[in-house]
Amino acid sequence: MTATVDLAVVGCTSLVGESILEVLAASTFPLGRLYLLDNEAAAGRKVEFRERYLVVESLASFDFGKVRLALFATSGQLAAEWAPKAAAAGCSVVDSSGHFRQREAVPLVVAEVNPEQLQRLPAGAIVASPSPAAVVLTLALKPLQQAAGIERIDATVCYPASTAGRAGVEELASQAAQLLNAREVKARTFPKQLAFNLLPQVGNLLADGSSDVEADVVAEMRRLLGAELAIGISAIQVPVFYGLAAVVHLQTHEPLTLADARALLAAEPGLEVVDDSAESGFPTPVTEAAQQDKVFVGRLREDGSRSRSLNFWIVADNVRKGAAINTIQLAEHLVRGNR
Amino acid sequence: MTATVDLAVVGCTSLVGESILEVLAASTFPLGRLYLLDNEAAAGRKVEFRERYLVVESLASFDFGKVRLALFATSGQLAAEWAPKAAAAGCSVVDSSGHFRQREAVPLVVAEVNPEQLQRLPAGAIVASPSPAAVVLTLALKPLQQAAGIERIDATVCYPASTAGRAGVEELASQAAQLLNAREVKARTFPKQLAFNLLPQVGNLLADGSSDVEADVVAEMRRLLGAELAIGISAIQVPVFYGLAAVVHLQTHEPLTLADARALLAAEPGLEVVDDSAESGFPTPVTEAAQQDKVFVGRLREDGSRSRSLNFWIVADNVRKGAAINTIQLAEHLVRGNR
Repeated sequence: MTATVDLAVVGCTSLVGESILEVLAASTFPLGRLYLLDNEAAAGRKVEFRERYLVVESLASFDFGKVRLALFATSGQLAAEWAPKAAAAGCSVVDSSGHFRQREAVPLVVAEVNPEQLQRLPAGAIVASPSPAAVVLTLALKPLQQAAGIERIDATVCYPASTAGRAGVEELASQAAQLLNAREVKARTFPKQLAFNLLPQVGNLLADGSSDVEADVVAEMRRLLGAELAIGISAIQVPVFYGLAAVVHLQTHEPLTLADARALLAAEPGLEVVDDSAESGFPTPVTEAAQQDKVFVGRLREDGSRSRSLNFWIVADNVRKGAAINTIQLAEHLVRGNR
Repeated sequence: MTATVDLAVVGCTSLVGESILEVLAASTFPLGRLYLLDNEAAAGRKVEFRERYLVVESLASFDFGKVRLALFATSGQLAAEWAPKAAAAGCSVVDSSGHFRQREAVPLVVAEVNPEQLQRLPAGAIVASPSPAAVVLTLALKPLQQAAGIERIDATVCYPASTAGRAGVEELASQAAQLLNAREVKARTFPKQLAFNLLPQVGNLLADGSSDVEADVVAEMRRLLGAELAIGISAIQVPVFYGLAAVVHLQTHEPLTLADARALLAAEPGLEVVDDSAESGFPTPVTEAAQQDKVFVGRLREDGSRSRSLNFWIVADNVRKGAAINTIQLAEHLVRGNR
């Protein structure tokens, strides 16, 4: 139990990579030697970790045989190339890049939802952390599903700029500054102006008119909650820096009272109900979710227009709670066994 | 047909009042003498109209017997007090304040949806223009309802800052400037910071957990489309200045192909389909809706997760299309008869 684990954080300068380092630094993970890896462009930079400075090494020249575990926060392309090499060297991988989320052979795991999938994995296993939307939604839906079953889920998911990484955050900030200074707005990362605007499409359109992001969230939620579930996801891009939010409609198989639903959610470790019916008794991306480790649920109410139906609002920090925290939780499960 | 109509615009300095004057100036309305009215604080201001300056008069001292028609863009409180006095003086009223929207005795009319309600109204009638959300949603849903019937409507409606009037617009702008200058953010009009954030509640909560704004939109849509309709509305406040947007799920009684739905929407005079499947083939509040006279629909697609179901996205300028244009259209119907 007290043995330490040598660890690599791959893509350590990405938004998620930085957040993984923050969460790791404050965690009780039995950390041995820590290697910070990234692409050639970032190699040589110094990054602070627990009041020391570590030098970022180039991923291309790293020997994964030196570590027991690698946490990937890279692009999907880099993960596709390097995660199998790490695994072949006997290093287990937790991947938050998105590349392995749809591979049936790779466990897709939310720590609070299906940690049993991590039992008895061999060294050199690859495990995928779901997209932030799937992490956040399934975390709230799982206890309600266990109590009453799910007939149908519909959600409008509001994606902040940080889901497009640092480039997204910087583009929203610069567009806002351009507008407030009456200068022309430039759009590169997003297809149209995002500042003070809403874009109804996240990702690329598929033949059926849904976007790949929407289809992926549906597929991931089915892997996590049940293959046959009826799920409708609409994704919109919103001018928020950090914090994913969703308007959720849930129809259950069995009746579930509002009081029972609230109690089930309040008992969930990774979740907090902010729903006190006071004037501002609701959680928002900025005031509750940003930089926090929990999923926040508010405006929980019965849907009077259909039977066995609840509506609620959910927010969480997409980078920290939706990716980094789950990645560290999965890493802890992998090295300590399923607690 | 060529007789002119003396007209009062009441609340002429509000956002909607200003927009009514803009639309009126560019319209073919057979305008006679125009009176600009507002509360005491605004009286005496000069307002430009068709390259002349008119002086705003105090509502309190105005004789409504001088005009045939009054367009109210005031607070609900002022409309409650003054619209009945205008009507008693034989002056017909089109009210966009919201005060009369739930009164069964007062026709609630969207020009493209139910103009027949304006037939044979006596002088001194009061007519209500619905809330912008109800105007925009029913305009798109009506042709689809006529073709295939409606089993259920669900919409997540995104309210811009301008739905809270000039104070809302100014608060969003000043919060954004405060944040970009690293100053403390103040919230007065909205309950929490709105800039770069989302608030999951618009209006005040009712006993059943819905907000009054949500309940009002449902009630207005039922008045416009059918009393028994199953409608679920979730309202969120978004950091956008102008332009109301909604994610809409529609389940019809009869099957309706995507091509037929698109053709029906494209044939609707007040509506434009922006849905060319190109990379940025979708409408947004800023790039399409703001300052425009139409409702824009995009991302029209079948919902593969349930039968007879379509999803789409809809945007329109809440102040101009959602209020001012409809108000002028109702005024034209009232004075010229139902064309």
